[in-house]
Amino acid sequence: MKKFEEKTISSEKVFAGKVISLQVDEVVLPDGKHSKREIVKHPGAVAVIAITPDNKMIMVEQYRKPLERSVVEIPAGKLEKGEEPLYCAARELEEETGYESKKMEHLISFYTSPGFADELIHIFLAEDLVKKENAAAGDDDEFVEVLELTLDEAEEYVRMGKIYDAKTAYAVQFMQLRKALNR
Amino acid sequence: MKKFEEKTISSEKVFAGKVISLQVDEVVLPDGKHSKREIVKHPGAVAVIAITPDNKMIMVEQYRKPLERSVVEIPAGKLEKGEEPLYCAARELEEETGYESKKMEHLISFYTSPGFADELIHIFLAEDLVKKENAAAGDDDEFVEVLELTLDEAEEYVRMGKIYDAKTAYAVQFMQLRKALNR
Repeated sequence: MKKFEEKTISSEKVFAGKVISLQVDEVVLPDGKHSKREIVKHPGAVAVIAITPDNKMIMVEQYRKPLERSVVEIPAGKLEKGEEPLYCAARELEEETGYESKKMEHLISFYTSPGFADELIHIFLAEDLVKKENAAAGDDDEFVEVLELTLDEAEEYVRMGKIYDAKTAYAVQFMQLRKALNR
Repeated sequence: MKKFEEKTISSEKVFAGKVISLQVDEVVLPDGKHSKREIVKHPGAVAVIAITPDNKMIMVEQYRKPLERSVVEIPAGKLEKGEEPLYCAARELEEETGYESKKMEHLISFYTSPGFADELIHIFLAEDLVKKENAAAGDDDEFVEVLELTLDEAEEYVRMGKIYDAKTAYAVQFMQLRKALNR
């Protein structure tokens, strides 16, 4: 899909960090005028809607520096270079929560902020969870607390603003839809 | 919510653009170690789930330079400085689609990428739409085509990857839930 394509005239790398990089592209618009686009490059991510045998959603609470507060989210993490999303999802689930899933299924992938970033996040549904004895640990600069929430509790967390991000809002709505369809 | 707070030691402004800016913060982690956080600052945004009298979703197709392709999204736009989200939602709906809503309601707000950006998007439901005679025009560097999709068509667009972003995936799921609950 190339409708209204914006052709690149030049691209300037402004920053290269450990998670993201930033470039400013000069483009030609469909009417021939020029404009600039500020673009964040991101390696992509996965997130997991993990459901316990008693139908609770596994969440992690962590501090998010960009928001200067902690939030409750579904388990998630960045893709490592060349890593398969499914493998990454299993790894992040184990590292963050200690659970392994015997039934993991890809639900949907979406860009989080298509206006300024290329971050694509892959969402998985994980069921048939088993607690691992010697679960792998995660990044040493990540501090998370694991929570298990009923759907009622998760809905309340959305209302209170404890759950406050796109992928987790999507996950809670997914569970609401599942319940409504009685699956 | 300050659990696992990361205290800022220093903050370096790396880039200030017309849409986003970027800073790198040095922080102290809960265990006393230091780390760096790359943070994109964004003014915030609105998006509108706009439903026609015959229950179609109004969408816009536009080119997204970060993705190097066009995608189909619900109408959306950035908050201007000091602008009320509800006002902004009405403005973007009119500018992008020519519609005015007699019944606009805030549904939810969420951060799109809490790991690296502070973009908060406010989602509104707009019903009782009226086509305006002399609708205001949008930004002169935006080229969009307006589409009206049934829920079946929107679901097909998700499967085909024509709809490919978080807020629009949320919007389609919202309509699925609404239908399942028979509202």
